[in-house]
Amino acid sequence: MPRQIIFGEIPGIEEGHWFQGRKEMMPTSFHRNWAAGIDGNGREGAAAIVLSGGYEDDKDLGEEIIYTGAGGNDPTTGKQTEDQSWHNRGNAGLLKSMNEGLPVRVIRGSSHNSKFSPKIGYQYAGLFSVIDAWEEVGKSGYKICRFKLVYSGDNESRGSAEEIELDHGIRAKKRQIGTILRIIRDTKIARDVKLLYNFKCQVCGTAIEIKNGLYAEGAHIRPLGEPHNGDDSLANILCLCPNHHVMFDRGSFSIADDLQLLGKAAGTLHVDNKHKLDKSNLKYHRDSHGYD
Amino acid sequence: MPRQIIFGEIPGIEEGHWFQGRKEMMPTSFHRNWAAGIDGNGREGAAAIVLSGGYEDDKDLGEEIIYTGAGGNDPTTGKQTEDQSWHNRGNAGLLKSMNEGLPVRVIRGSSHNSKFSPKIGYQYAGLFSVIDAWEEVGKSGYKICRFKLVYSGDNESRGSAEEIELDHGIRAKKRQIGTILRIIRDTKIARDVKLLYNFKCQVCGTAIEIKNGLYAEGAHIRPLGEPHNGDDSLANILCLCPNHHVMFDRGSFSIADDLQLLGKAAGTLHVDNKHKLDKSNLKYHRDSHGYD
Repeated sequence: MPRQIIFGEIPGIEEGHWFQGRKEMMPTSFHRNWAAGIDGNGREGAAAIVLSGGYEDDKDLGEEIIYTGAGGNDPTTGKQTEDQSWHNRGNAGLLKSMNEGLPVRVIRGSSHNSKFSPKIGYQYAGLFSVIDAWEEVGKSGYKICRFKLVYSGDNESRGSAEEIELDHGIRAKKRQIGTILRIIRDTKIARDVKLLYNFKCQVCGTAIEIKNGLYAEGAHIRPLGEPHNGDDSLANILCLCPNHHVMFDRGSFSIADDLQLLGKAAGTLHVDNKHKLDKSNLKYHRDSHGYD
Repeated sequence: MPRQIIFGEIPGIEEGHWFQGRKEMMPTSFHRNWAAGIDGNGREGAAAIVLSGGYEDDKDLGEEIIYTGAGGNDPTTGKQTEDQSWHNRGNAGLLKSMNEGLPVRVIRGSSHNSKFSPKIGYQYAGLFSVIDAWEEVGKSGYKICRFKLVYSGDNESRGSAEEIELDHGIRAKKRQIGTILRIIRDTKIARDVKLLYNFKCQVCGTAIEIKNGLYAEGAHIRPLGEPHNGDDSLANILCLCPNHHVMFDRGSFSIADDLQLLGKAAGTLHVDNKHKLDKSNLKYHRDSHGYD
Protein backbone atom coordinates (compact mmCIF):
# COMPACT_ATOMS: atom_id res chain seq x y z
CA MET A 1 0.00 0.00 0.00
CA PRO A 2 1.47 3.34 -1.01
CA ARG A 3 2.48 5.71 1.75
CA GLN A 4 0.55 8.93 2.19
CA ILE A 5 1.97 12.09 0.71
CA ILE A 6 3.41 14.50 3.29
CA PHE A 7 4.08 18.19 2.60
CA GLY A 8 6.69 20.29 4.31
CA GLU A 9 9.36 19.27 6.78
CA ILE A 10 9.60 15.69 7.99
CA PRO A 11 10.65 15.32 11.63
CA GLY A 12 14.23 14.12 12.06
CA ILE A 13 15.35 15.16 8.56
CA GLU A 14 16.90 18.60 8.73
CA GLU A 15 18.03 20.75 5.85
CA GLY A 16 21.46 19.48 4.85
CA HIS A 17 20.61 15.88 5.77
CA TRP A 18 22.62 13.40 3.70
CA PHE A 19 21.28 10.19 2.21
CA GLN A 20 23.42 7.43 0.80
CA GLY A 21 20.72 6.43 -1.67
CA ARG A 22 17.15 7.09 -2.66
CA LYS A 23 15.72 4.04 -0.90
CA GLU A 24 16.56 5.70 2.41
CA MET A 25 14.07 8.45 1.56
CA MET A 26 11.12 6.10 1.22
CA PRO A 27 10.26 4.80 4.74
CA THR A 28 9.61 8.32 6.04
CA SER A 29 7.75 9.40 2.85
CA PHE A 30 10.50 11.98 2.37
CA HIS A 31 10.48 11.00 -1.31
CA ARG A 32 8.32 7.99 -1.99
CA ASN A 33 9.20 7.25 -5.57
CA TRP A 34 12.46 5.47 -6.15
CA ALA A 35 12.58 6.01 -9.91
CA ALA A 36 10.86 9.37 -10.59
CA GLY A 37 12.28 12.80 -9.94
CA ILE A 38 8.94 14.18 -8.77
CA ASP A 39 7.00 12.69 -5.88
CA GLY A 40 3.39 13.72 -6.33
CA ASN A 41 0.44 14.01 -8.68
CA GLY A 42 -2.05 16.49 -10.05
CA ARG A 43 -4.70 15.75 -7.46
CA GLU A 44 -2.57 16.17 -4.34
CA GLY A 45 0.40 18.23 -5.52
CA ALA A 46 4.11 17.41 -5.52
CA ALA A 47 5.85 17.13 -2.15
CA ALA A 48 9.45 16.47 -3.18
CA ILE A 49 11.79 16.49 -6.17
CA VAL A 50 15.21 14.96 -6.71
CA LEU A 51 17.68 16.83 -8.89
CA SER A 52 19.85 14.18 -10.42
CA GLY A 53 21.06 15.58 -13.69
CA GLY A 54 18.45 13.67 -15.64
CA TYR A 55 17.57 16.70 -17.75
CA GLU A 56 20.08 18.68 -19.71
CA ASP A 57 18.13 21.91 -19.32
CA ASP A 58 18.11 22.17 -15.53
CA LYS A 59 19.68 25.21 -13.89
CA ASP A 60 20.61 25.49 -10.25
CA LEU A 61 21.35 28.93 -8.90
CA GLY A 62 21.32 27.76 -5.30
CA GLU A 63 18.37 29.62 -3.82
CA GLU A 64 16.60 29.52 -7.15
CA ILE A 65 16.21 26.46 -9.31
CA ILE A 66 14.97 26.13 -12.88
CA TYR A 67 13.66 22.60 -13.06
CA THR A 68 12.61 20.63 -16.08
CA GLY A 69 9.48 18.56 -15.64
CA ALA A 70 9.06 14.86 -16.20
CA GLY A 71 8.44 12.72 -19.28
CA GLY A 72 9.61 12.57 -22.85
CA ASN A 73 13.05 11.23 -22.11
CA ASP A 74 14.55 7.86 -22.82
CA PRO A 75 14.89 6.01 -19.50
CA THR A 76 18.21 4.50 -20.56
CA THR A 77 20.05 7.48 -22.01
CA GLY A 78 18.12 10.24 -20.22
CA LYS A 79 17.93 12.10 -23.55
CA GLN A 80 14.74 13.88 -24.54
CA THR A 81 13.06 11.94 -27.34
CA GLU A 82 9.56 13.43 -27.35
CA ASP A 83 7.53 16.41 -26.10
CA GLN A 84 6.72 16.68 -22.41
CA SER A 85 3.14 17.17 -21.27
CA TRP A 86 1.43 19.16 -18.50
CA HIS A 87 -0.74 16.07 -17.98
CA ASN A 88 2.26 14.09 -16.82
CA ARG A 89 1.63 13.02 -13.23
CA GLY A 90 4.68 14.78 -11.82
CA ASN A 91 4.31 17.96 -13.86
CA ALA A 92 0.65 18.23 -12.89
CA GLY A 93 1.79 17.77 -9.29
CA LEU A 94 4.20 20.69 -9.46
CA LEU A 95 1.49 22.88 -11.03
CA LYS A 96 -0.83 21.94 -8.19
CA SER A 97 1.89 22.82 -5.66
CA MET A 98 2.30 26.20 -7.34
CA ASN A 99 -1.41 26.94 -7.39
CA GLU A 100 -1.99 25.84 -3.82
CA GLY A 101 1.21 27.31 -2.39
CA LEU A 102 2.47 23.91 -1.24
CA PRO A 103 6.12 23.53 -0.22
CA VAL A 104 8.38 21.18 -2.18
CA ARG A 105 11.32 19.34 -0.59
CA VAL A 106 14.31 19.61 -2.89
CA ILE A 107 17.01 16.94 -2.86
CA ARG A 108 20.24 17.25 -4.80
CA GLY A 109 21.97 14.11 -6.05
CA SER A 110 25.70 13.83 -6.73
CA SER A 111 24.96 13.37 -10.43
CA HIS A 112 23.18 16.73 -10.56
CA ASN A 113 25.45 19.21 -12.30
CA SER A 114 25.73 22.00 -9.74
CA LYS A 115 28.25 23.31 -7.27
CA PHE A 116 25.61 22.76 -4.61
CA SER A 117 25.45 18.99 -5.20
CA PRO A 118 27.03 16.57 -2.73
CA LYS A 119 30.12 14.64 -3.88
CA ILE A 120 28.35 11.35 -3.34
CA GLY A 121 24.81 10.37 -2.41
CA TYR A 122 21.97 12.86 -1.93
CA GLN A 123 21.51 15.94 0.19
CA TYR A 124 18.31 17.65 1.33
CA ALA A 125 18.41 21.29 0.14
CA GLY A 126 15.34 22.44 2.08
CA LEU A 127 11.84 23.60 1.25
CA PHE A 128 11.20 25.48 -1.96
CA SER A 129 8.10 27.11 -3.47
CA VAL A 130 7.10 26.76 -7.13
CA ILE A 131 6.58 30.32 -8.37
CA ASP A 132 6.42 29.95 -12.14
CA ALA A 133 5.62 27.32 -14.78
CA TRP A 134 6.05 27.60 -18.52
CA GLU A 135 6.99 25.56 -21.57
CA GLU A 136 9.78 25.96 -24.07
CA VAL A 137 11.75 24.03 -26.65
CA GLY A 138 14.65 22.36 -24.87
CA LYS A 139 18.18 21.83 -26.12
CA SER A 140 16.87 18.54 -27.48
CA GLY A 141 14.43 20.28 -29.83
CA TYR A 142 11.43 18.87 -27.92
CA LYS A 143 8.94 20.75 -25.80
CA ILE A 144 9.78 20.75 -22.11
CA CYS A 145 7.73 21.83 -19.09
CA ARG A 146 9.72 24.08 -16.82
CA PHE A 147 9.32 25.30 -13.28
CA LYS A 148 10.99 27.96 -11.22
CA LEU A 149 11.43 27.17 -7.55
CA VAL A 150 12.78 29.51 -4.90
CA TYR A 151 14.02 28.63 -1.46
CA SER A 152 11.33 29.23 1.11
CA GLY A 153 12.57 27.25 4.08
CA ASP A 154 13.23 28.27 7.62
CA ASN A 155 16.97 28.80 7.47
CA GLU A 156 17.47 32.49 8.12
CA SER A 157 21.23 32.32 7.65
CA ARG A 158 21.01 31.30 4.01
CA GLY A 159 21.45 33.91 1.36
CA SER A 160 18.11 34.79 -0.08
CA ALA A 161 16.76 34.21 -3.55
CA GLU A 162 17.76 36.58 -6.28
CA GLU A 163 14.36 37.90 -7.20
CA ILE A 164 14.35 40.71 -9.68
CA GLU A 165 11.44 43.20 -9.57
CA LEU A 166 12.07 43.77 -5.89
CA ASP A 167 13.47 47.01 -4.68
CA HIS A 168 11.84 46.97 -1.31
CA GLY A 169 11.59 43.26 -0.67
CA ILE A 170 9.55 42.28 2.30
CA ARG A 171 11.28 39.40 3.97
CA ALA A 172 9.27 37.53 6.44
CA LYS A 173 9.54 34.91 9.11
CA LYS A 174 7.40 31.87 8.94
CA ARG A 175 4.92 30.26 11.24
CA GLN A 176 3.74 26.72 11.24
CA ILE A 177 0.28 27.34 9.82
CA GLY A 178 0.63 29.03 6.49
CA THR A 179 1.60 28.61 2.90
CA ILE A 180 2.55 31.33 0.45
CA LEU A 181 0.38 31.46 -2.58
CA ARG A 182 1.24 34.41 -4.70
CA ILE A 183 3.50 37.41 -4.62
CA ILE A 184 2.64 40.49 -6.57
CA ARG A 185 5.46 42.88 -7.21
CA ASP A 186 5.57 46.20 -8.85
CA THR A 187 8.11 48.42 -10.55
CA LYS A 188 8.33 52.08 -11.39
CA ILE A 189 7.44 51.30 -15.00
CA ALA A 190 4.38 49.48 -13.69
CA ARG A 191 3.29 52.72 -12.06
CA ASP A 192 3.66 54.50 -15.40
CA VAL A 193 1.51 52.01 -17.27
CA LYS A 194 -1.20 52.19 -14.61
CA LEU A 195 -1.34 55.96 -14.89
CA LEU A 196 -1.46 55.73 -18.70
CA TYR A 197 -4.62 53.61 -18.48
CA ASN A 198 -5.98 55.32 -15.38
CA PHE A 199 -5.92 51.93 -13.63
CA LYS A 200 -8.30 50.34 -16.18
CA CYS A 201 -7.56 46.74 -17.10
CA GLN A 202 -6.48 46.47 -20.73
CA VAL A 203 -8.50 43.27 -21.04
CA CYS A 204 -11.81 44.01 -19.31
CA GLY A 205 -11.75 47.75 -18.61
CA THR A 206 -12.26 47.25 -14.87
CA ALA A 207 -10.63 49.72 -12.49
CA ILE A 208 -10.75 48.45 -8.91
CA GLU A 209 -12.06 51.10 -6.52
CA ILE A 210 -10.18 51.40 -3.24
CA LYS A 211 -10.17 53.81 -0.35
CA ASN A 212 -8.30 56.68 -1.93
CA GLY A 213 -8.50 55.97 -5.63
CA LEU A 214 -8.11 53.16 -8.08
CA TYR A 215 -6.06 49.99 -8.17
CA ALA A 216 -4.50 47.96 -10.95
CA GLU A 217 -1.41 45.84 -11.39
CA GLY A 218 1.51 46.06 -13.80
CA ALA A 219 1.95 42.71 -15.57
CA HIS A 220 5.21 41.99 -17.36
CA ILE A 221 4.64 40.17 -20.63
CA ARG A 222 8.05 38.48 -20.74
CA PRO A 223 8.77 37.94 -17.03
CA LEU A 224 11.62 39.71 -15.32
CA GLY A 225 14.38 37.66 -13.76
CA GLU A 226 15.99 34.33 -14.57
CA PRO A 227 15.55 32.60 -16.89
CA HIS A 228 13.20 34.81 -18.91
CA ASN A 229 15.09 38.08 -18.43
CA GLY A 230 12.35 40.32 -19.78
CA ASP A 231 12.81 44.10 -19.71
CA ASP A 232 11.22 46.44 -17.23
CA SER A 233 9.95 48.72 -19.99
CA LEU A 234 6.62 50.01 -21.28
CA ALA A 235 7.06 47.73 -24.31
CA ASN A 236 6.91 44.75 -21.95
CA ILE A 237 4.17 45.61 -19.50
CA LEU A 238 0.38 45.68 -19.35
CA CYS A 239 -2.08 47.33 -16.98
CA LEU A 240 -4.35 44.54 -15.72
CA CYS A 241 -6.86 43.93 -12.96
CA PRO A 242 -5.73 41.30 -10.43
CA ASN A 243 -7.96 38.63 -11.99
CA HIS A 244 -6.53 39.06 -15.45
CA HIS A 245 -3.03 39.37 -14.03
CA VAL A 246 -3.32 35.95 -12.41
CA MET A 247 -4.70 34.51 -15.66
CA PHE A 248 -2.03 36.11 -17.82
CA ASP A 249 0.87 35.00 -15.62
CA ARG A 250 -0.48 31.45 -15.62
CA GLY A 251 -1.01 31.48 -19.39
CA SER A 252 -4.83 31.19 -19.26
CA PHE A 253 -4.82 33.69 -22.08
CA SER A 254 -2.25 35.18 -24.39
CA ILE A 255 -2.11 37.90 -27.04
CA ALA A 256 -1.68 37.65 -30.81
CA ASP A 257 0.44 40.15 -32.75
CA ASP A 258 -2.79 41.84 -33.92
CA LEU A 259 -3.77 42.15 -30.21
CA GLN A 260 -6.55 39.55 -30.42
CA LEU A 261 -6.90 37.79 -27.09
CA LEU A 262 -6.28 34.04 -27.21
CA GLY A 263 -7.42 31.31 -24.83
CA LYS A 264 -9.68 32.11 -21.88
CA ALA A 265 -10.14 35.80 -22.73
CA ALA A 266 -12.19 37.14 -25.62
CA GLY A 267 -11.93 40.22 -27.80
CA THR A 268 -8.99 42.54 -28.34
CA LEU A 269 -6.45 43.99 -25.96
CA HIS A 270 -7.06 47.70 -25.48
CA VAL A 271 -3.79 49.51 -26.23
CA ASP A 272 -3.23 53.26 -26.00
CA ASN A 273 -1.54 55.03 -28.93
CA LYS A 274 1.36 56.00 -26.69
CA HIS A 275 1.90 52.40 -25.64
CA LYS A 276 4.14 50.51 -28.08
CA LEU A 277 4.29 46.83 -27.24
CA ASP A 278 7.25 44.77 -28.38
CA LYS A 279 5.88 41.90 -30.47
CA SER A 280 8.78 39.66 -29.54
CA ASN A 281 7.55 39.85 -25.96
CA LEU A 282 4.05 38.83 -27.04
CA LYS A 283 5.54 35.90 -28.93
CA TYR A 284 7.61 34.95 -25.90
CA HIS A 285 4.45 34.79 -23.78
CA ARG A 286 2.59 32.76 -26.40
CA ASP A 287 5.48 30.33 -26.73
CA SER A 288 5.76 30.00 -22.96
CA HIS A 289 2.17 28.91 -22.63
CA GLY A 290 1.58 26.74 -25.65
CA TYR A 291 -0.14 29.19 -28.02
CA ASP A 292 1.03 28.48 -31.57
CA MET B 1 10.04 76.91 -2.78
CA PRO B 2 9.31 73.47 -1.34
CA ARG B 3 11.80 70.74 -2.09
CA GLN B 4 10.76 67.86 -4.30
CA ILE B 5 9.64 64.64 -2.65
CA ILE B 6 12.16 61.82 -2.93
CA PHE B 7 11.30 58.17 -2.39
CA GLY B 8 13.71 55.51 -1.19
CA GLU B 9 17.27 55.86 -0.01
CA ILE B 10 18.99 59.21 -0.04
CA PRO B 11 22.69 59.07 -0.88
CA GLY B 12 24.95 59.62 2.12
CA ILE B 13 22.30 58.73 4.69
CA GLU B 14 22.64 55.10 5.61
CA GLU B 15 20.35 53.05 7.78
CA GLY B 16 21.33 53.79 11.37
CA HIS B 17 22.29 57.40 10.56
CA TRP B 18 21.86 59.67 13.57
CA PHE B 19 20.43 63.18 13.47
CA GLN B 20 20.69 65.67 16.29
CA GLY B 21 17.44 67.33 15.28
CA ARG B 22 14.76 67.36 12.62
CA LYS B 23 16.09 70.41 10.82
CA GLU B 24 19.09 68.34 9.74
CA MET B 25 16.72 66.14 7.74
CA MET B 26 15.41 68.96 5.61
CA PRO B 27 18.22 70.09 3.26
CA THR B 28 18.48 66.61 1.69
CA SER B 29 14.67 66.15 1.55
CA PHE B 30 15.16 63.21 3.90
CA HIS B 31 12.12 64.49 5.80
CA ARG B 32 10.99 67.88 4.58
CA ASN B 33 8.44 68.78 7.18
CA TRP B 34 9.78 70.04 10.45
CA ALA B 35 6.51 69.82 12.36
CA ALA B 36 4.56 66.89 10.90
CA GLY B 37 5.23 63.21 11.46
CA ILE B 38 4.43 62.29 7.86
CA ASP B 39 6.25 63.81 4.90
CA GLY B 40 3.97 63.44 1.89
CA ASN B 41 0.49 63.86 0.48
CA GLY B 42 -2.27 61.94 -1.23
CA ARG B 43 -1.19 62.87 -4.74
CA GLU B 44 2.46 61.83 -4.48
CA GLY B 45 2.53 59.42 -1.54
CA ALA B 46 4.41 59.61 1.74
CA ALA B 47 8.20 59.32 1.62
CA ALA B 48 9.14 59.46 5.30
CA ILE B 49 7.67 59.32 8.79
CA VAL B 50 9.08 60.30 12.16
CA LEU B 51 8.08 58.26 15.21
CA SER B 52 8.21 60.62 18.11
CA GLY B 53 5.73 59.34 20.62
CA GLY B 54 3.12 61.82 19.52
CA TYR B 55 0.39 59.21 19.50
CA GLU B 56 -0.43 57.03 22.44
CA ASP B 57 -1.53 54.13 20.23
CA ASP B 58 1.70 53.55 18.29
CA LYS B 59 3.36 50.14 18.52
CA ASP B 60 6.92 49.39 17.52
CA LEU B 61 7.87 45.76 17.13
CA GLY B 62 11.16 46.59 15.45
CA GLU B 63 10.74 45.15 11.99
CA GLU B 64 7.04 45.84 12.12
CA ILE B 65 5.47 49.08 13.16
CA ILE B 66 1.85 49.93 13.90
CA TYR B 67 1.63 53.64 13.20
CA THR B 68 -1.17 56.02 13.99
CA GLY B 69 -1.94 58.54 11.26
CA ALA B 70 -2.02 62.29 11.56
CA GLY B 71 -4.64 64.74 12.75
CA GLY B 72 -7.13 65.02 15.55
CA ASN B 73 -4.65 65.70 18.29
CA ASP B 74 -4.00 68.83 20.27
CA PRO B 75 -0.69 70.30 19.11
CA THR B 76 0.26 71.30 22.63
CA THR B 77 -0.60 68.21 24.66
CA GLY B 78 -0.43 65.67 21.83
CA LYS B 79 -3.69 64.16 23.15
CA GLN B 80 -6.36 63.02 20.71
CA THR B 81 -9.26 65.46 20.84
CA GLU B 82 -11.20 64.59 17.68
CA ASP B 83 -11.56 61.90 15.00
CA GLN B 84 -8.80 61.44 12.44
CA SER B 85 -9.60 61.43 8.72
CA TRP B 86 -8.35 59.53 5.68
CA HIS B 87 -8.45 62.86 3.87
CA ASN B 88 -5.70 64.22 6.08
CA ARG B 89 -2.72 65.03 3.87
CA GLY B 90 -0.32 62.67 5.62
CA ASN B 91 -2.79 59.80 5.99
CA ALA B 92 -3.74 60.05 2.32
CA GLY B 93 0.00 60.00 1.57
CA LEU B 94 0.53 56.75 3.45
CA LEU B 95 -2.46 55.19 1.67
CA LYS B 96 -0.95 56.21 -1.65
CA SER B 97 2.39 54.70 -0.64
CA MET B 98 0.59 51.46 0.21
CA ASN B 99 -1.34 51.34 -3.04
CA GLU B 100 1.65 52.19 -5.20
CA GLY B 101 4.19 50.10 -3.29
CA LEU B 102 6.32 53.13 -2.44
CA PRO B 103 9.01 52.82 0.23
CA VAL B 104 8.75 54.93 3.40
CA ARG B 105 11.82 56.10 5.33
CA VAL B 106 11.21 55.55 9.04
CA ILE B 107 12.96 57.72 11.61
CA ARG B 108 12.77 57.05 15.34
CA GLY B 109 13.02 59.94 17.76
CA SER B 110 14.25 59.67 21.34
CA SER B 111 10.78 60.58 22.60
CA HIS B 112 9.28 57.58 20.79
CA ASN B 113 8.47 54.92 23.35
CA SER B 114 10.37 51.91 22.03
CA LYS B 115 13.49 49.98 22.85
CA PHE B 116 14.63 50.74 19.30
CA SER B 117 14.62 54.50 19.86
CA PRO B 118 17.90 56.40 20.23
CA LYS B 119 18.71 57.87 23.64
CA ILE B 120 18.85 61.37 22.18
CA GLY B 121 18.11 62.84 18.78
CA TYR B 122 16.76 60.83 15.84
CA GLN B 123 17.88 57.67 14.09
CA TYR B 124 17.08 56.43 10.58
CA ALA B 125 15.51 52.96 10.90
CA GLY B 126 15.55 52.17 7.18
CA LEU B 127 12.96 51.68 4.44
CA PHE B 128 9.59 50.22 5.29
CA SER B 129 6.55 49.27 3.21
CA VAL B 130 2.98 50.09 4.19
CA ILE B 131 1.09 46.81 3.99
CA ASP B 132 -2.19 47.54 5.77
CA ALA B 133 -4.43 50.49 6.64
CA TRP B 134 -7.52 50.50 8.83
CA GLU B 135 -9.36 52.62 11.34
CA GLU B 136 -10.26 51.98 14.95
CA VAL B 137 -11.25 53.77 18.12
CA GLY B 138 -8.08 54.76 19.92
CA LYS B 139 -7.39 54.80 23.64
CA SER B 140 -8.66 58.38 23.53
CA GLY B 141 -12.11 57.29 22.39
CA TYR B 142 -11.67 59.01 19.02
CA LYS B 143 -11.33 57.38 15.61
CA ILE B 144 -7.74 56.91 14.51
CA CYS B 145 -6.27 55.92 11.14
CA ARG B 146 -3.72 53.17 11.51
CA PHE B 147 -1.06 51.72 9.29
CA LYS B 148 1.10 48.64 9.45
CA LEU B 149 4.59 49.02 8.07
CA VAL B 150 7.16 46.26 7.68
CA TYR B 151 10.86 46.62 7.14
CA SER B 152 11.72 46.25 3.48
CA GLY B 153 15.19 47.73 3.27
CA ASP B 154 18.37 46.29 2.00
CA ASN B 155 19.97 45.18 5.22
CA GLU B 156 20.25 41.42 4.94
CA SER B 157 21.68 41.01 8.40
CA ARG B 158 18.61 42.32 10.13
CA GLY B 159 16.11 39.92 11.53
CA SER B 160 13.15 39.78 9.24
CA ALA B 161 9.61 40.91 9.84
CA GLU B 162 7.34 38.71 11.88
CA GLU B 163 4.69 38.06 9.30
CA ILE B 164 2.09 35.56 10.30
CA GLU B 165 0.38 33.52 7.54
CA LEU B 166 3.76 32.58 6.18
CA ASP B 167 4.99 29.05 6.48
CA HIS B 168 7.12 29.07 3.40
CA GLY B 169 8.18 32.69 3.21
CA ILE B 170 9.96 33.66 0.06
CA ARG B 171 12.69 36.04 0.97
CA ALA B 172 14.18 37.98 -1.81
CA LYS B 173 17.02 40.27 -2.65
CA LYS B 174 16.32 43.61 -4.14
CA ARG B 175 17.34 45.40 -7.26
CA GLN B 176 17.28 49.06 -7.90
CA ILE B 177 14.27 49.08 -10.18
CA GLY B 178 11.29 47.67 -8.39
CA THR B 179 8.76 48.25 -5.69
CA ILE B 180 6.64 45.65 -3.95
CA LEU B 181 2.97 46.15 -4.29
CA ARG B 182 1.08 43.29 -2.80
CA ILE B 183 1.74 40.01 -1.15
CA ILE B 184 -0.84 37.30 -1.21
CA ARG B 185 -0.43 34.55 1.30
CA ASP B 186 -2.34 31.43 1.88
CA THR B 187 -2.97 29.01 4.70
CA LYS B 188 -4.21 25.46 4.96
CA ILE B 189 -7.62 26.74 6.03
CA ALA B 190 -7.63 28.88 2.91
CA ARG B 191 -7.27 25.72 0.87
CA ASP B 192 -10.27 24.22 2.65
CA VAL B 193 -12.51 27.21 1.94
CA LYS B 194 -11.52 27.22 -1.73
CA LEU B 195 -12.42 23.57 -2.07
CA LEU B 196 -15.74 24.18 -0.28
CA TYR B 197 -16.70 26.76 -2.92
CA ASN B 198 -14.95 25.00 -5.78
CA PHE B 199 -12.87 28.16 -6.28
CA LYS B 200 -15.93 30.34 -6.94
CA CYS B 201 -15.80 33.85 -5.50
CA GLN B 202 -18.40 34.27 -2.76
CA VAL B 203 -19.10 37.77 -4.05
CA CYS B 204 -19.28 37.42 -7.84
CA GLY B 205 -19.24 33.66 -8.46
CA THR B 206 -16.18 33.89 -10.71
CA ALA B 207 -13.72 30.99 -10.69
CA ILE B 208 -10.47 31.90 -12.42
CA GLU B 209 -9.45 29.30 -14.98
CA ILE B 210 -5.79 28.36 -14.98
CA LYS B 211 -3.67 25.70 -16.62
CA ASN B 212 -4.64 22.72 -14.49
CA GLY B 213 -7.79 23.83 -12.80
CA LEU B 214 -9.28 26.78 -10.99
CA TYR B 215 -7.86 29.56 -8.88
CA ALA B 216 -9.21 31.58 -5.97
CA GLU B 217 -7.79 33.19 -2.88
CA GLY B 218 -8.54 32.73 0.79
CA ALA B 219 -9.31 36.10 2.37
CA HIS B 220 -9.21 36.45 6.12
CA ILE B 221 -12.03 38.65 7.43
CA ARG B 222 -10.24 39.76 10.57
CA PRO B 223 -6.61 39.83 9.45
CA LEU B 224 -4.06 37.45 10.91
CA GLY B 225 -1.05 38.85 12.72
CA GLU B 226 -0.47 41.93 14.84
CA PRO B 227 -2.41 43.92 15.76
CA HIS B 228 -5.63 42.33 14.50
CA ASN B 229 -4.84 38.76 15.60
CA GLY B 230 -7.68 37.14 13.66
CA ASP B 231 -8.00 33.36 13.66
CA ASP B 232 -6.99 31.11 10.84
CA SER B 233 -10.33 29.32 10.91
CA LEU B 234 -13.23 28.71 8.53
CA ALA B 235 -15.28 31.17 10.61
CA ASN B 236 -12.84 33.90 9.61
CA ILE B 237 -12.15 33.27 5.94
CA LEU B 238 -13.81 33.80 2.59
CA CYS B 239 -13.20 32.37 -0.87
CA LEU B 240 -12.73 35.35 -3.17
CA CYS B 241 -11.43 36.10 -6.65
CA PRO B 242 -8.28 38.27 -6.65
CA ASN B 243 -10.27 41.40 -7.57
CA HIS B 244 -12.66 41.06 -4.67
CA HIS B 245 -9.82 40.05 -2.37
CA VAL B 246 -8.01 43.33 -3.10
CA MET B 247 -11.24 45.26 -2.56
CA PHE B 248 -12.10 43.45 0.66
CA ASP B 249 -8.65 43.86 2.19
CA ARG B 250 -8.74 47.58 1.37
CA GLY B 251 -12.24 47.99 2.76
CA SER B 252 -13.90 48.87 -0.58
CA PHE B 253 -16.73 46.68 0.56
CA SER B 254 -17.73 45.00 3.78
CA ILE B 255 -20.42 42.56 4.94
CA ALA B 256 -23.43 43.08 7.19
CA ASP B 257 -24.50 40.46 9.74
CA ASP B 258 -27.32 39.45 7.36
CA LEU B 259 -24.64 38.95 4.66
CA GLN B 260 -25.71 41.97 2.61
CA LEU B 261 -22.71 43.46 0.84
CA LEU B 262 -21.91 47.05 1.80
CA GLY B 263 -19.95 49.69 -0.10
CA LYS B 264 -18.59 49.00 -3.58
CA ALA B 265 -20.14 45.53 -3.93
CA ALA B 266 -23.83 44.81 -4.39
CA GLY B 267 -26.09 41.94 -3.38
CA THR B 268 -25.54 39.24 -0.81
CA LEU B 269 -22.51 37.19 0.08
CA HIS B 270 -22.96 33.62 -1.04
CA VAL B 271 -22.37 31.37 1.97
CA ASP B 272 -22.50 27.58 1.99
CA ASN B 273 -24.54 25.84 4.71
CA LYS B 274 -21.38 24.20 6.01
CA HIS B 275 -19.62 27.55 6.35
CA LYS B 276 -20.39 29.24 9.66
CA LEU B 277 -18.98 32.76 9.74
CA ASP B 278 -18.26 34.41 13.06
CA LYS B 279 -20.26 37.66 13.17
CA SER B 280 -17.72 39.29 15.44
CA ASN B 281 -15.23 38.96 12.60
CA LEU B 282 -17.65 40.65 10.18
CA LYS B 283 -18.11 43.45 12.69
CA TYR B 284 -14.35 43.76 13.09
CA HIS B 285 -13.98 44.24 9.34
CA ARG B 286 -16.80 46.79 9.20
CA ASP B 287 -15.33 48.72 12.11
CA SER B 288 -11.88 48.64 10.52
CA HIS B 289 -13.11 50.27 7.36
CA GLY B 290 -15.66 52.77 8.55
CA TYR B 291 -18.92 50.89 7.99
CA ASP B 292 -21.32 51.71 10.79
